[in-house]
Amino acid sequence: MFNDFKLVAETPVYVQVKNYIKWLITKGALQSGQRLPSTRELAGLLGVSRNSVISAYEGLAEEGLTRAVTGKGSFVAEAAVPALDQVPAWRMNWPERMNRQARLSVELDHMKRGRPGVRAEKGTISFTSIAPDEQLFDLDNVKRAFLDRMAVEGHVLLNYGYARGYKPLIDYLLKYMERKGVDLTGKEMLITSGFTEGLDIVLSAIRTGDGEGEGGFVLCENPTHHTAIKNLRRHGFAITGIPMEQDGLDLAELELALQRQAYDCAYLVPSYHNPTGIVTSAEKRLALLQLLGRYRVPVIEDGFNEELRYSGSHVAPLIAMAGQGNGVVYLGSFSKVLFPGIRVGWVLADRELIDVLESVKRARSIHTSTLDQSLLYQYLQNGNLEKYLKKARAEYRRKYEWAKACCERHVPYARLSGSGGLHLFAEFADGFDTWELLEACASQGVIFTPGDLFYVDGGGQNTMRIGFSRVSDEDIGKGIRIIGETAAKLLGR
Amino acid sequence: MFNDFKLVAETPVYVQVKNYIKWLITKGALQSGQRLPSTRELAGLLGVSRNSVISAYEGLAEEGLTRAVTGKGSFVAEAAVPALDQVPAWRMNWPERMNRQARLSVELDHMKRGRPGVRAEKGTISFTSIAPDEQLFDLDNVKRAFLDRMAVEGHVLLNYGYARGYKPLIDYLLKYMERKGVDLTGKEMLITSGFTEGLDIVLSAIRTGDGEGEGGFVLCENPTHHTAIKNLRRHGFAITGIPMEQDGLDLAELELALQRQAYDCAYLVPSYHNPTGIVTSAEKRLALLQLLGRYRVPVIEDGFNEELRYSGSHVAPLIAMAGQGNGVVYLGSFSKVLFPGIRVGWVLADRELIDVLESVKRARSIHTSTLDQSLLYQYLQNGNLEKYLKKARAEYRRKYEWAKACCERHVPYARLSGSGGLHLFAEFADGFDTWELLEACASQGVIFTPGDLFYVDGGGQNTMRIGFSRVSDEDIGKGIRIIGETAAKLLGR
Repeated sequence: MFNDFKLVAETPVYVQVKNYIKWLITKGALQSGQRLPSTRELAGLLGVSRNSVISAYEGLAEEGLTRAVTGKGSFVAEAAVPALDQVPAWRMNWPERMNRQARLSVELDHMKRGRPGVRAEKGTISFTSIAPDEQLFDLDNVKRAFLDRMAVEGHVLLNYGYARGYKPLIDYLLKYMERKGVDLTGKEMLITSGFTEGLDIVLSAIRTGDGEGEGGFVLCENPTHHTAIKNLRRHGFAITGIPMEQDGLDLAELELALQRQAYDCAYLVPSYHNPTGIVTSAEKRLALLQLLGRYRVPVIEDGFNEELRYSGSHVAPLIAMAGQGNGVVYLGSFSKVLFPGIRVGWVLADRELIDVLESVKRARSIHTSTLDQSLLYQYLQNGNLEKYLKKARAEYRRKYEWAKACCERHVPYARLSGSGGLHLFAEFADGFDTWELLEACASQGVIFTPGDLFYVDGGGQNTMRIGFSRVSDEDIGKGIRIIGETAAKLLGR
Repeated sequence: MFNDFKLVAETPVYVQVKNYIKWLITKGALQSGQRLPSTRELAGLLGVSRNSVISAYEGLAEEGLTRAVTGKGSFVAEAAVPALDQVPAWRMNWPERMNRQARLSVELDHMKRGRPGVRAEKGTISFTSIAPDEQLFDLDNVKRAFLDRMAVEGHVLLNYGYARGYKPLIDYLLKYMERKGVDLTGKEMLITSGFTEGLDIVLSAIRTGDGEGEGGFVLCENPTHHTAIKNLRRHGFAITGIPMEQDGLDLAELELALQRQAYDCAYLVPSYHNPTGIVTSAEKRLALLQLLGRYRVPVIEDGFNEELRYSGSHVAPLIAMAGQGNGVVYLGSFSKVLFPGIRVGWVLADRELIDVLESVKRARSIHTSTLDQSLLYQYLQNGNLEKYLKKARAEYRRKYEWAKACCERHVPYARLSGSGGLHLFAEFADGFDTWELLEACASQGVIFTPGDLFYVDGGGQNTMRIGFSRVSDEDIGKGIRIIGETAAKLLGR
């Protein structure tokens, strides 16, 4: 015994000794009533100072795992864990107990379900990600924001916060949204753990049932954000997708759909639409708001990467265009623009709706991490967003133009879209299969995301998304050339 | 115009100027086509440097809000926001669209529903909180943990993490649970945004339906944690409460309940049970595991404040007693022990179950804040938990003993429970009404939590919870005396 103890760096020695003895006790290697070695003896056996052992023994006694008998030493206390044979080690069949929503979560979990060739091996050029390039992160300003805020109210940050969110951040973001043209009359804000939690909370509150298709009816662009599709399905919504044109969804198709039946809501991504990268034009935004208003269909607006505009002109979000109307629920996040690791998003909507969502948020997770919220607030308050966006926009714009030029030169697409953001979307001739293309490219060390993932109706087999944010210029050139040449070969067969 | 500009500290001047002009544009105070003042002129009007104005104008042009015409100046670009009269400001009736779960979230939201007298006004002695005393927080070690971790892998922390959780933290917590005697064979861990999200995720995956009583059947201690009651109800569970004895729930009643019908799960808080403060004895833990095993009812074990033991001896959690059985789902958190503002909890359970819950977590919120997780990991790794617990236990123990002594001296209770933790629970004679007591005490500046909140069957009108963690010694003495004297008066009527 005592010969498998290994010291590690960082953790205080006495804690390591204490945990080691604790482990021996819980494993049954040290039995109840057994005498522990003297502190001097154990110090020698483990190669640590006697003081460390003394502190460790004190800690064990404090936790009731040992008892000290004056003049006699330390003894292991009465069995902390009963003998295993007393308890029936009965087994549940957990998969059998999972309900429809849980099963759907697994079934629609693209990160988990084996997608051959999509996972990046070392050295692979991967166009699958649209996460930000972490080399752009300004760590020093993040550290400064943290220390600034801790200095102001560290104790407050570490204790419970409010379900609604961190007040200074809410005030900042309300002003931020007001500057985008939003009329704040009658509106309030809820902070969520990123965009995704915001969407999930909204859907959980408005879905009408739990079974497949019982959740209600929803309209969306087709293709659209796959995480949104997943959550709409999990909540039982039946989805109607409206095809995309180069300047946003097809209004005629939208009107036809609206005439056919009633909808509970529409989920829309008007800016840098994922996956197509299309920015819905101002005219179309106005027209679709008028149309949805006429049919009384509320809009869930995904403000995805609105900040990453580096070409074209400023377009107001739908919630700004709706004025004092309360039919638009806006979901915002800086995750893709700033730091995805900081899980902060916001829901801006009608006051009465936010009041209910606040209670849902409290029931689900009390509140969003105050540390994340306060760090983000101080980072914004210090004026870093402007500086960072300037740098990030310049870098992504360069990559975007380079990736676009490479596609135009090498890829035999039928349609290419994307007016900014972090990705491009290519459509090939009918009948072309991007899964087949992926397989052929993967064997040459290049991967991307086949577009069918983003379609709500099983379509899009001839499409693909190319995320360039985390790929070097050289690899963008090389990777897109390989994709293009391979596609040409497959098309030429 | 330009006379309502006010400089604030912290934010760079040029950002403030830019945002101010942006606000004037979106408000319509500056119309499209209108010429902005020269940089020199505006600098004078706003009382800022000309360089700040130049930078601000550059930023506005970059965002497409203005266009610079060489030699002529800056002009507001074509309308960023359409005239409001173009859009029908249609209104939704949101409350009407809320489903049962959302309505229940509001109805059971005790933070929101007017509970007369329960809200603390300035100067009130409040026994309603069981949050930690923030004066105990060791901010310096928190800051060090943050900076240590940022130095190691700041870029990684700020980008996307894994739904399962931050690997170093998972590894640390698995060892931590192993030292509590847990056999990790066949078990895995999921990190959640605090205990509450963990419970909500588990319940959302196993509930059988969505309507009232359609969620399935659950057993729990009566009284029990009100957040758990709320979430069980939200998920449609029908709740059967088992009365508490001084050493845990009444086994005979449990067996009767088990004989009567089948249950989907049992929710149990074996240590420092909220609200009674009771620690279920080792014998009872074993007996109830055997009983539940015989009836094949899985257990959701709430490891609430297990770490705050400062009297009595070490008792193993149920999941340790269950050995290699997979019938116990353990929910852990350091929220009440360390920092509630850091939203990190964990679910330790059967591998197949965690695999499903991981997908649910990903669908709901991608992953828990990496910043929170990595800071907590480094704080633990630096050995701070031991040191902090030593300090916190000593302090809370002192308060506990003082509060208990005060209750014994002043309060005419029929039963007092609580063997540690951060609160005591008092039961008065049948027919006594603690809401009436609360009202009488509130007018004297003392408040507490009436116990009926924690009962699943409308009982407990004669009970109350006294949280002492955030009350000074002097106020504990004064407040409990007032409660006691007022109760005596009410009883003597």
